[in-house]
Amino acid sequence: MERAVPREEIERRLDAFQAELVAGNLDAALVVQTTDVFYLSGTAQNAHLVVPAEGEPVLCVRKTLERALAESPLERIQPLRSLRELPGVLLAAGIRGGRLGLELDVLPAARYLDYARRFDGFELADCSEAVRRVRLRKSAWEIERIAAASEMLSHVPGWVADVLSPGMTELELAAELERQLRRAGHQGLCRMRAFNGDMFYGVVVAGPSGAVPGGTDTPLVGSGPNAAIAKGSSRRPIGRGEPVIVDLVGAWDGYLSDQTRTFSLGPLAAHLREAHERTREILHRVAAEARPGVPASRLYDLAIELADPYDGFMGLGEERVSFVGHGLGLEIDEPPFLARGYDEPLESGMVFALEPKLLFPGEGAVGIENTYVVTDDGAQALTSAPEELLEL
Amino acid sequence: MERAVPREEIERRLDAFQAELVAGNLDAALVVQTTDVFYLSGTAQNAHLVVPAEGEPVLCVRKTLERALAESPLERIQPLRSLRELPGVLLAAGIRGGRLGLELDVLPAARYLDYARRFDGFELADCSEAVRRVRLRKSAWEIERIAAASEMLSHVPGWVADVLSPGMTELELAAELERQLRRAGHQGLCRMRAFNGDMFYGVVVAGPSGAVPGGTDTPLVGSGPNAAIAKGSSRRPIGRGEPVIVDLVGAWDGYLSDQTRTFSLGPLAAHLREAHERTREILHRVAAEARPGVPASRLYDLAIELADPYDGFMGLGEERVSFVGHGLGLEIDEPPFLARGYDEPLESGMVFALEPKLLFPGEGAVGIENTYVVTDDGAQALTSAPEELLEL
Repeated sequence: MERAVPREEIERRLDAFQAELVAGNLDAALVVQTTDVFYLSGTAQNAHLVVPAEGEPVLCVRKTLERALAESPLERIQPLRSLRELPGVLLAAGIRGGRLGLELDVLPAARYLDYARRFDGFELADCSEAVRRVRLRKSAWEIERIAAASEMLSHVPGWVADVLSPGMTELELAAELERQLRRAGHQGLCRMRAFNGDMFYGVVVAGPSGAVPGGTDTPLVGSGPNAAIAKGSSRRPIGRGEPVIVDLVGAWDGYLSDQTRTFSLGPLAAHLREAHERTREILHRVAAEARPGVPASRLYDLAIELADPYDGFMGLGEERVSFVGHGLGLEIDEPPFLARGYDEPLESGMVFALEPKLLFPGEGAVGIENTYVVTDDGAQALTSAPEELLEL
Repeated sequence: MERAVPREEIERRLDAFQAELVAGNLDAALVVQTTDVFYLSGTAQNAHLVVPAEGEPVLCVRKTLERALAESPLERIQPLRSLRELPGVLLAAGIRGGRLGLELDVLPAARYLDYARRFDGFELADCSEAVRRVRLRKSAWEIERIAAASEMLSHVPGWVADVLSPGMTELELAAELERQLRRAGHQGLCRMRAFNGDMFYGVVVAGPSGAVPGGTDTPLVGSGPNAAIAKGSSRRPIGRGEPVIVDLVGAWDGYLSDQTRTFSLGPLAAHLREAHERTREILHRVAAEARPGVPASRLYDLAIELADPYDGFMGLGEERVSFVGHGLGLEIDEPPFLARGYDEPLESGMVFALEPKLLFPGEGAVGIENTYVVTDDGAQALTSAPEELLEL
């Protein structure tokens, strides 16, 4: 329990968030989702963060005040014994009415309706885009943490080489890699913002499982351990000559990194080996085009063009996803989206994972993924594991 | 991709859910949360389940239809290409207006407001209690799965004895136990329903960390690996004579089980050893009173009475939680709650975890937890690891 996020970070974030509130005609925001509260206050305790468009934010803590006081550099931190106190807190912060922003993309409807009753006289509005836009631009301090999360992923090929053997199940391979990540200090829990979007480390699958379609909006899904989870590793043994695709998320100080590498036990068939080379080529050609000012959608279009004529690029048939990369930070599904229609230009300080993958029905998936930071000189890879197909 | 949940299970669940809709004056429900969709349809694919209060449910699948068709025994399964089609689906199912139930406790506000626009002419209402009440009563088929999730936890004391050594960090111990659980087929992901209620396997902490307060509504929190996660294992080395408390969730076929055991390296101080014995006594005396007809709150009251005069029972000071146990199934936070004010009587087939724990500031936590099923003959433990304090 000590200060985790420097005061200057928090001040810069709150300034940027308040500027977004002003731009969005919001008089204040009431931030309640753990990740957003942590981002803006420096503590992930159970709290409501009241942010007026101008003036001092107030962190109202349900549980625990002691820990919030130790962790957050905010000046105004106070206990919140009941939600009934909130309208009074707003009033004391000089917020007398107008448009009150809530994180409508994640706030449960029942809570929203409850707030609507409590904040009589306010117009409730959405501030989720405002907070996501601020979080989109990473500071040097944040990039250090994403680099640390990337560093633990640099050992993945060595770990796979140490343990992968014929007959081992996908789940057994995942068990060994997850253990190594934890030993390297991985926080375990990886957060995702999307409704129903639970995630667990990533996807470690082999052979046909790599091309099994599923309900998630990702190119790789996997059969999963059972129908309730329906994604990720299964109890199927890994055979010789199958592509083994290891898509794992590193995590340090809350910040995530995403990396994919491909392996096999014995040689892979020539068309799969060529396909893997193609994904590497797409990765490098697309990454080379990523620089400030380039619309994220242009990188998607380029990847699609380079992948032609592969049917299985980023999914099979109708299951193909409409992106080739995604931003990440405290959550795995942040902007920028390297996706059809996401025309926002890249800026220096944005971080994204680029993940060209090719699926072959009945055979599996090959591909690669790196996490990059956009700099004035172009995209710089934060993940650094050897990119070659590793045939063991 | 094959039928995971038997047809009779799904039929029984839907019948019970439709009876709840009728009782709640709901004309239909639109179920969208993954766990609820899985429970009522047998598939966890991305889908909307339309359930009229009377008549045939319709599963509308975004992604993937192929997998939903293979997994779900429902008669009416169809693709859903756009949310725009939903009002037409309701009409075709004979739902022409009235009260439409949504899972308001988990549905994001933005989705709720979107549905409110689409379902013009309907009154939107909450069906989350209806689905939770149905899920509260477990079938023999479900109890088998919770027993399988419990079985993997029976090995925990052996695993701890194999690896615990002085200087090992909490995270390193967690890494080894999580690995063993995965090797035993653990699904990894454990679902929780509460907003902001992300969880990861459980809590493995030692010494002072066991008594660190935090933002979660649980007796044990832990310092965690960083301020962003703020719970669970830390990088602190485990010392001799410290209580090591291992609270882990087993998982099989989507179903969860919860178990806590206490360990130490070398002998524990006499007052901690006595406190551990007290938690065992509370566990057995409370479990002995659990039978059909007994209000869940009475078990809480009994535990509090038996714990007197310990200040640190279920948390320190104001951080004390107001429960001593919780239901579980596909999610870790289900009814029944063995809590102050939860006066619903227990019924045969309910499953709950009972977790008396005692916290000592600066020293840590001791305690125990079993998962039980309520039968006509009383509570029967599903978790079976030896309950004694294990001094290694």
